[in-house]
Amino acid sequence: MYKATVIIKRRPKILDPQGKAVEQGAKLLGFNNVKATRIGKYIEFFVDNKEKASAEEEVKLLCDKLLANPNMEDFEFTLEEVK
Amino acid sequence: MYKATVIIKRRPKILDPQGKAVEQGAKLLGFNNVKATRIGKYIEFFVDNKEKASAEEEVKLLCDKLLANPNMEDFEFTLEEVK
Repeated sequence: MYKATVIIKRRPKILDPQGKAVEQGAKLLGFNNVKATRIGKYIEFFVDNKEKASAEEEVKLLCDKLLANPNMEDFEFTLEEVK
Repeated sequence: MYKATVIIKRRPKILDPQGKAVEQGAKLLGFNNVKATRIGKYIEFFVDNKEKASAEEEVKLLCDKLLANPNMEDFEFTLEEVK
């Protein structure tokens, strides 16, 4: 079994309104040093598969077919073996 | 200047309906090996501060006061110096 940790981010050229909102909120609270805020998703799950290469393939497919928006997001992931 | 990378997760005992929805979607697509999906936030920003300890303090405060919900989320972050 492997634990997958997936990070999904908007591509740098795509506007991130949620990030802008957080940045404005930060300024209102007096955090004037905070710049270029971008918000993405952090997804964890287990893959019940004994072979790492095959688990990797599953995670990649799941990102392509469900988790990430292929029009504007990129993803990266790591796999860690768990007993 | 430092680049902050913040990860915000619901506490393990708190139900994650978005994770459940992703898991059901994965099953519908035939990914039957995917278990215990949890969805969190991944936030990146720059902190315009030369001192690492002070930048760390700012990020911690920002998480406490704005980014994380203290009732049900935990956060962790890393800082990386950028020129």
